[in-house]
Parts: sequence; structure tokens; C-alpha cells
Amino acid sequence: MKRQMHLGLFLLGTGSHIAGWRMPGAVDSFQDIEAVCEIARTAERAKFDLIFMGDNLNADPAAHPSYTARLEPLTLLSAVAMATERVGLGATVSTTYSDPFTVARAFASLDHISHGRAAWNAVTTAAPAAAANFGTQHPDHARRYEIAGEFLDTVKGLWDCWADDAIVADRESGLYIDPARVKPLDHEGAFFKVKGPVNIGRAPQGHPIISQAGGSEPGQQLAARTADLVFAVVQDIDEARAGYQALKARLPALGRRPEDVCVLPGVMPVVGRTDREARDKLNALMRHVNASNALGMLSERFGVDMSAYDLDGPIPELPKADTYHSFTGVMLAKARRESMTLRDLYNLVAAARGHWVLCGSAESVADTLQDWFETGAADGFNVMPPYFHEGFTDFTDLVVPLLQERGLFRADYEGTTLRDHLGLQRPANPNFPA
Amino acid sequence: MKRQMHLGLFLLGTGSHIAGWRMPGAVDSFQDIEAVCEIARTAERAKFDLIFMGDNLNADPAAHPSYTARLEPLTLLSAVAMATERVGLGATVSTTYSDPFTVARAFASLDHISHGRAAWNAVTTAAPAAAANFGTQHPDHARRYEIAGEFLDTVKGLWDCWADDAIVADRESGLYIDPARVKPLDHEGAFFKVKGPVNIGRAPQGHPIISQAGGSEPGQQLAARTADLVFAVVQDIDEARAGYQALKARLPALGRRPEDVCVLPGVMPVVGRTDREARDKLNALMRHVNASNALGMLSERFGVDMSAYDLDGPIPELPKADTYHSFTGVMLAKARRESMTLRDLYNLVAAARGHWVLCGSAESVADTLQDWFETGAADGFNVMPPYFHEGFTDFTDLVVPLLQERGLFRADYEGTTLRDHLGLQRPANPNFPA
Repeated sequence: MKRQMHLGLFLLGTGSHIAGWRMPGAVDSFQDIEAVCEIARTAERAKFDLIFMGDNLNADPAAHPSYTARLEPLTLLSAVAMATERVGLGATVSTTYSDPFTVARAFASLDHISHGRAAWNAVTTAAPAAAANFGTQHPDHARRYEIAGEFLDTVKGLWDCWADDAIVADRESGLYIDPARVKPLDHEGAFFKVKGPVNIGRAPQGHPIISQAGGSEPGQQLAARTADLVFAVVQDIDEARAGYQALKARLPALGRRPEDVCVLPGVMPVVGRTDREARDKLNALMRHVNASNALGMLSERFGVDMSAYDLDGPIPELPKADTYHSFTGVMLAKARRESMTLRDLYNLVAAARGHWVLCGSAESVADTLQDWFETGAADGFNVMPPYFHEGFTDFTDLVVPLLQERGLFRADYEGTTLRDHLGLQRPANPNFPA
Repeated sequence: MKRQMHLGLFLLGTGSHIAGWRMPGAVDSFQDIEAVCEIARTAERAKFDLIFMGDNLNADPAAHPSYTARLEPLTLLSAVAMATERVGLGATVSTTYSDPFTVARAFASLDHISHGRAAWNAVTTAAPAAAANFGTQHPDHARRYEIAGEFLDTVKGLWDCWADDAIVADRESGLYIDPARVKPLDHEGAFFKVKGPVNIGRAPQGHPIISQAGGSEPGQQLAARTADLVFAVVQDIDEARAGYQALKARLPALGRRPEDVCVLPGVMPVVGRTDREARDKLNALMRHVNASNALGMLSERFGVDMSAYDLDGPIPELPKADTYHSFTGVMLAKARRESMTLRDLYNLVAAARGHWVLCGSAESVADTLQDWFETGAADGFNVMPPYFHEGFTDFTDLVVPLLQERGLFRADYEGTTLRDHLGLQRPANPNFPA
């Protein structure tokens, strides 16, 4: 069988376009569990590998109106687990503002509840405003990645405290747990001290899937060492190929094979029956953009108040941001390549928060995705619909069938766990060799 | 209408009897989401006010085999929300090992997902072993309650950051959030510094229900000031009446009415068609008790290794425990009243972890509950079945109909939220007066 594409659905607020909720009939609340379950079932009908929930740890009504008020990812996905049967469920949780014991048990719990469909999107939290909600200082970029590395190792260690067969539950003898098959972790590192064992048995997937999206040097290195799935921020195929190959090139030195990590660039598809129809849809979306929201988001991404600059002038020299390294780098590179004004840049951010916008007929969208997939730019895509439901069903109804006809994407699930969908092996448990 | 009894179902492990899982056909895994959903639906068919999940933050296979490996409460109850429609959903989360921002958003999320059925059982975490999983020292009892008080106030403050009508989502104007209807919290106290606002709109119940179970002086005072629901550890009616009246007596000075707080003593019912049948069931359960588990649990509760003492001798003098104040106090009082041996005491703990065991025919169980309810000992009961499903359906099928016939318990839900079931008003929002 041909190598298969993987598809994730990214859920953040009412859609990835800042003003998508204003489209006629669009979902306009991200606190509506029934709407989210319908989105998840649409993804499952289209045989997506997973849906995954972004997150932020501060409310920012000015920059992010439609996703400031929203359900918390773990509780949300646990509910979605009950409304679906096969699609993977990825929740974003920060390594800067949580702790390994809590995260290990919560994702193991989601994995048990969903029968092996959990993924943890481990982020370091870019927005410094989060710190004020936790009574602490936001660590700088390098420090955040040091913390994240130890955090991830600790969580994985907790997931290996229990042998798969530790729970005996023998009614005759009364033995419930075999004590020889449960071990403490006894982790003591620079940032965390965690005794363990965790208070939940080993997860159906062994380890829930780990995804990451960091684009900086330490982010890439962490992903290469610890992630199963990488979401990439890209704007064109050359950039995507370079990033894809650079990430895969890191793997052998870490004892991993290229196929051990799936790289999924983010893409906001705007799909019509013709290129013209798609372009009209994008124009309709862009007409709804509110300048102050767009400038607010741009200011937040770059950590600089942009309202002082001339909208129709060139993009000012900006200090190197400590936040959103990959977003800001990718966007500025494109903006300078294309001699954008500040207005052009904010339109770019408003469209998909800095991600790649792919606008065209279903045929042309499928052609482009195939080209990326077959020429070393992607193992699949993280699909970021501009709004729901139509902005997503345009993709599932028009583009997915073309990918299936071309033998690039599954016609049905073959396994039951997210690991099965991604073609990744269940990790052995080093504490309890077979 | 007569004053109505309230019923909660307590879920911890495979049942409240330490060896309940060994009964023929009993649920023997607490990681089985389908079994938990069936239990929740049974509670809902019996029109229970709520189910509520206990929790611990350390794995203790020796003392608590059947609930050491278990699902995390918030993810579990979010899944159960999708399998039920009316029953309330209470999750235990510690104020010592979490943070207010995380807790506020998670319970608001569960409240949105369940359409107003969330309750937070706020505990301070008695077991010092938890600290080792969080790289910290276990604060002493008094300090834990000081932290808890500020934690609860902060969470309630976060729940009031959003006016009920803050989310406008006006497609025409593009206004998503009315900025005048969202306020930061700006909390700065001895233990927490939380800016806010929280990143989720106001909960359907305004505030999710708060429950507590602390029996010590600071625990009682905290409950009187902040709780809607109090779970009490009792062994006899005189003790229960005294505790009930003492708690209600604290309320006026705090500006609260007696009916603002529901007091539910915990009870493990063992129900038969006759008293003899019930006694046989309890004996069958007790025959399954494993001495080392029972001594392990006793040692953990009292913070003293009990294995050194003579099982058939008198109960030794024990140092005052810093953990489980109400458990240890209530159990020791009963043990001394009844001149128990250490073996009697461990059997008492093994039966229901120190809670009241009520064993008898359905008629006699209903009579006793009615007596407690009508003579100032309880507003209802926190039902702790010894095992599932039979140990619970004995109660729902045999006892609940008697309570309904007597007009003491609802024949059906009248409202949709947990607040409705408990007869508690939705709190006004002090930040946004009507």
C-alpha cells in the first residue's frame, strides 16, 4: 500500500479565521459541547486521525475574542470521547503551568476513557500574560524548554510505573495488585521531584501520543527527542520542506527512525467548487475582519503594540520576540519576501493566525496537498478550518474523497487507537521487560 | 410539599467495602468507563441528586488496592456527563495540590458541558504521601485550611469575572465580547496571586456547587462559610445530630440560612429483603477482608504502623493524627464506647473506611434514614455502596421506592441543574448587579 497521509483537525475557538464566526450559520460559541461533538463526528466520518484542541491560559478578549471564552481541553475531549468511537483526541496542556503528576494521570485517564485515543499536545505557553494567573513569573524561552524536557521525561516515566499486567483482581486469592509489577519513579531533577507511582494503571496506548508545535531550535530538538507528532507553522513549500527535512535529520542521532515522527504542517483550507468560488469565500471572510481585533492579535503575537504604526506603511523593524518564535519568524519572512504593508501582515494573521492559507477548488487543494505530501514537505496536514461547520465540511466532503480516490488517505480506520491510525508502535515498558 | 431528602452516591474504587470487588459478579475495575456510566445511570434512574467521586493523590496499593488504579475525577465525570442527563456530577480536587485558575476553569467547563450539573468537592488532602508526587512538603492541618479558604474565595471570584451576558457574538457589528461585562479579579493574598479574568464564560449554575467533608474545627468553619453541601462522617445518630446542629448553628453569623447548606452523612447500606438476609450479605463481605490490606488502611488513616500491635488486644494509645481528623475521632470514640479490639477496629474500617454501616431489611433501612432525616441528624445521605452493581441496586430498587412512597424523596427531577435538585438559588454576580 502507498504511504498514507495523516489528517488532524485543529480546534481553537469558533474556527481559525479571526472573524469566521460572523459567517452566516457559523458556530458562534466555543462553549457549546453539542457543536464540538458534531465537529468531532464530522472529522470521524472523514476518517481523520485526530482532532486537537489548542489552548491559552489567559483571557484576551481584545486579541482573541472568539476563543477567549471556551471549554477546558481535557474535560472537553473526555466528553467528545463519548460521542465518537475512533478519532484521536489531542488536548493542549502547558508544561510551564501544570505539574507532571497531574498531567500524567489526566492523559492516562483520557486514554482509558477513550480506549486508546488520547494525545497530549505539550506546549510551553508563549503568552507571558499567563503567568499573572498563576502568581508567578513567565520563564524565558530557553528556560521554558528546559522545564518542558524534564516535564515530558517525568510524565513518560510515570506512565511506565505500572506493568500492563499489574492489576490482577483475583477474586479467589484477594490479590488486587501484584506489588512486583508496580514501581515508584523516584524522579529528582532540576525542576521536578516526583516519587510516584502514578495512581492509574498503564494506558491502553502504553503512552498517549505526544504532539508538539515548537518551531525554535530548542523546540525542534525537544520534538525530535520526545514527540510522535509535530505540528508545523509554514507559509510555503520550500520552507515546509526545509523544516521537514531538518526535523527528520535530527532523529537518527536520537535513536529514532524518520517514520517515528509525523510532521503535519498547519493549513487553513478555503475550498470551493471552482477557484473563483473559493476566492469569493475568502474575500467574504476577510470583509468581516475587525481592524482592532487583528491589530490586537498581531501585537500579542509580536509582543509589540502595533497600533502606533502606519497601517499602509512598510513593516517596522521589530525586536526579536521571546514569544511565538516560529509564528513571528515565518510571518516576517513572508512579509518581507512579498514587500507587505502592515495591513497586509495583519490580514495574513487574521486569516489563520499566521498559518498557511490554501484557497482554491477541491481539485487544486488536493493537488497541492498531494504535492507537499509526495515531495518531502509533510506526512499529512493539520487542518484548520476558517469556521464551522461549512468551512470544515467543504474540506471533508470535497477534498477528502479526492485524496481517498488517489489512494493517499484511508477509506476507513484499520485499527482502534490513535497509535494505530498513525502507524506508531506501542512503546515497551523499560521497567518491566517482556 | 414535605421537606425533601437529598441523596448522593459516593464513588471511590470498586465500592466502599475494601473487599467488595471480590463478591460474585461485582465490578472489579475502577478504570472501566462503561461500568461507571452504568452506575451513574442507575443513580439517575433512582433520581439521586448527584454522584460524587472521591480522590487521592498518591498510589497506595497496600492500603487501598481497589482504588489505587483509577480514572481521574474531572475527565471521568465529563465523560459521565455525556451518558446521563440530570444527575449531578461532583469531582474531588485538592486545594493543596492544584491552583485556583486551573480549578475554576475546569469546573466551569464541566458545568457548561453538563448544562449545570457540576460540583466541586474541595478537599485539603489528608495523606502526607501526596506531597512527594508534587515535589513539596505537606502543609500541616491548620495551614492546609488557611490555603483552602483563600483558594475557594479565589475560585469563586474567578467564576464571577464574566457577566452572564458578556458574550454578545453579534454577527452584524462584529462585537463578540462586551468588554464592559468582563472584569479581572486582581486577587493578591497570602497564598495566591491571580489576575484573571478566567478564560471561560460564567457557568450555567453561576457557581458550580461546592461540597466539603472536613470534620475538624477549621473544616467545619470553612464548610459553614463556603460550602453548599457537606458530607459528614458519623457512626451514630447522637453524634450525627450534634454535628448537624453545630454546623447549622454556625451559619447565621456568616449571613447564611440553615437551608443554604445540605448536610449528608455518609452511610454504607447493606440491604436485604429481611434483616437476616442483609446480615448474611455483610458477613459474606467481611469474610473477604484481607488482614494486611485492612491493617494497611488503618495504619494510613491513623498515621501509625499498626502491624506491631496485638490484633486481639485493646486498642493502643495513639498519637493525635494530623490526618483524617474526623475519621480517626469518630472511629476511636466508637471503638472505646464499644470496648473494641484492634481486630474489631480494622473490621470497622474495612467495612466502609470508617463510615456508618447500616445493615438490615429495606423497611428497617428506610425507617432509620427517615428517623435521621426527621429528627435533625441529616438533610439526606451520601450513599456508599459496598460494591457494584448489586450492592447499589439493592438500595435503589428496594429502599428508594419506600422513601418515595413515604413522600420523603422525589419521584422525578423537577429541574435540570444540580442547584435545582438541591433547592439552592443561583448566586448573583456581585461584579455585575442586575
